[in-house]
Amino acid sequence: MHIVVLAGGIGGARFLTGVRAYAREVGAEVTAVVNVGDDAIMHGLRISPDLDSVMYTLGGAADAERGWGRAGETWAVRQELAAYDAQPTWFGLGDKDLATHLVRTNMLNAGYPLSAVTEALCARWQPGVRLLPATDDRLETHVVVETDEGQRAIHFQEWWVRHRGDIPTRRFVFVGADAATPAPGVLDALGNADVVLVAPSNPVVSIAPILAVPGLRAALTGGRAPVIGISPIIGGAPVRGMADKCLAVIGAECSAAGVGRLYGPRREGGVLDGWLVDTSDDGADVPGVTVRATPLWMSDEVATTAMVRDAMELT
Amino acid sequence: MHIVVLAGGIGGARFLTGVRAYAREVGAEVTAVVNVGDDAIMHGLRISPDLDSVMYTLGGAADAERGWGRAGETWAVRQELAAYDAQPTWFGLGDKDLATHLVRTNMLNAGYPLSAVTEALCARWQPGVRLLPATDDRLETHVVVETDEGQRAIHFQEWWVRHRGDIPTRRFVFVGADAATPAPGVLDALGNADVVLVAPSNPVVSIAPILAVPGLRAALTGGRAPVIGISPIIGGAPVRGMADKCLAVIGAECSAAGVGRLYGPRREGGVLDGWLVDTSDDGADVPGVTVRATPLWMSDEVATTAMVRDAMELT
Repeated sequence: MHIVVLAGGIGGARFLTGVRAYAREVGAEVTAVVNVGDDAIMHGLRISPDLDSVMYTLGGAADAERGWGRAGETWAVRQELAAYDAQPTWFGLGDKDLATHLVRTNMLNAGYPLSAVTEALCARWQPGVRLLPATDDRLETHVVVETDEGQRAIHFQEWWVRHRGDIPTRRFVFVGADAATPAPGVLDALGNADVVLVAPSNPVVSIAPILAVPGLRAALTGGRAPVIGISPIIGGAPVRGMADKCLAVIGAECSAAGVGRLYGPRREGGVLDGWLVDTSDDGADVPGVTVRATPLWMSDEVATTAMVRDAMELT
Repeated sequence: MHIVVLAGGIGGARFLTGVRAYAREVGAEVTAVVNVGDDAIMHGLRISPDLDSVMYTLGGAADAERGWGRAGETWAVRQELAAYDAQPTWFGLGDKDLATHLVRTNMLNAGYPLSAVTEALCARWQPGVRLLPATDDRLETHVVVETDEGQRAIHFQEWWVRHRGDIPTRRFVFVGADAATPAPGVLDALGNADVVLVAPSNPVVSIAPILAVPGLRAALTGGRAPVIGISPIIGGAPVRGMADKCLAVIGAECSAAGVGRLYGPRREGGVLDGWLVDTSDDGADVPGVTVRATPLWMSDEVATTAMVRDAMELT
C-alpha cells in the first residue's frame, strides 16, 4: 500500500507523524509531496521552510512550542547579522537551522536538484517517509500588496513574517508555476498511490502552490487513487497560522465547508473525493464530495493517527 | 604623516594595535595592507582569516587566548555541519564569525570587491586604521605536498589547519598572483606613505603573498618611503604560528638574520631599509640593511607601541 500526502509546513508535519504511525501499523509506504512556495534566499542561503518543518518534525528535532525550526535552537548568527544591519533583519535564522541551509545551498550551487538535496539531508534525519519537493523548479509564492506607492509584489516570507499578513493584500502569485514540472518521483508516487491525502495545511499558500504545478495536478485529478482532504479549519478558524487571512484574500469562506468547496470535487475539476471535517463542523456540505466528521485536533500522535485512520475509511 | 603596514593575521593584528596607539600619539594615519592568501571558500562562504583577525583585534572583539576568531564564540553551526558530515569537517566556523562570512559572501556575490566589503564590515568594527586587502583579485596560497599518490597541491588552510604543516612539503604557490593587481587604495597609500612597516608576520605565507602582487611590490621597492621590517623570529623560533616550518620549506634559516636576508635590502632588489630584531638576536647581520635590536615581545599594547616607536627611529 502506498500513501501520498500533500503537505505544507507545521500542520502538514504534524499530520505526517500520524500518517507515519498509521503506515507502520498497516505496513504502508508514505511519500510526502511538500510545498516549496515558501522557499526563499535569505542572507544568501536557500531556505525551504516547509521541507525543513516536515524533516525536523519527523526527525524528532523540531521545536514543538515555536512551531518552526529546531528544538534547543540558539541565535548567535542572527544577533551578529543584526549588528551588521544585514538585510533582511526581520527574518531570523537559528544557528542549528542555518547549518541545514548551508548544506542545502552548497549542494544546490554544486548543481544538485532540491529533491536530491532533500534526500541527502534526510539521510541524517531519517523521517521514515519519503520527502519530495513538489518541484525542483523555482516556484515562489509572491503576494501583491497595496502600498502608499501603489501595488507591488513581495515575497511570501515578507508578507508572512514581516507583515504578519497585516497589509492590504490583492492576491497570491505562484511565480514560476506555469513552467514548473513535478520533482523526480512525484508522478511515479501519484501513479502508484492507493490513496492521496491532502494534509490540514493552509489551502491557499501551502496546498495551492503544490497543485499549481501543472503536471502534478493532472496526475492527481486523473489518477486512480481516491483523494481525501482533511480540513485545516475547525469551527470557522484555522487551527494554527493565518489561513483565515489567506482565505479572505481570495474571497473564500473561512470554514470547513468553504475550504472543501475551494478544493472542489474531483469529478468536476477539483481535487477531492472525500473531506474530513471536525465534529464541531458536522453537517458541512461540499457538493460532490463525501464529507465525514471526526475529531481533528492533532493534540498528539495517537489522536493524529486516529484522524488518519478516519481519513482512510473515507476511501 | 602616513604609515603603511604590511600585515598577516594574528601577529599583524597585534602589531597594528601598537601602530594605532603610536599613530594616535603623533597624529598619523595608518593603512594596513593585509594578506589574502589564506582566503578560502568554506561551506560556500568566503572566509578572509587575516583581514578578520586584524578587524576583530582592532575592533576589540578578537579571542586573545585562541588567537583567531571572536571572543565569546559559540559553535552550534559547526556541530550541526559535522552532524551532516558536511565537508570539510576539519575547518571550524564559529557562529559569530560565520555572520561576518555571510555578509562578506553576499556582498561579493552581489558584485562588490573585497576592498569595498572590508570597508563595509569595518563600519561596524571601527578598527581605527584603514584596512585594505592586498588585492581584490583571487590570490590563494596553495601548498605542493607529497602524498602516497605523488605530489599534489592543497589549499593553504588544509595544510595549516588540517595537517598542522606536518606533511612532506615541496613549496608554496600563490595562485593568481601573476595576474593580481593591488586593491584600490593600496598604490595611493604606498605612494603617500612616509614609512612602510613590515609587521612581524609569517614571512613565507603572510608577507610573501602580499609582495607577490607585482604592482604592489614595485610600488614598495620603488617608493620614497623607507621600509622597516620587524622580525617574527625571536631567538631562532617563531613567536607564534609555524614560520619555522614554512621557512624550512623554502630553505631559509629560521632566525632573525635569516628572515632579514630573505626579505633582503631594498637597494639590491629586496624590500628592507631597516630591520628590527629582538635584543636576544642582537648582532644579527643583514648586509645592506640597518639592523637594530629592541625587545620584540608584544605582551601588551604598551610594549607593542614601544616596538613601533623603535621601528620608526630606524627610518
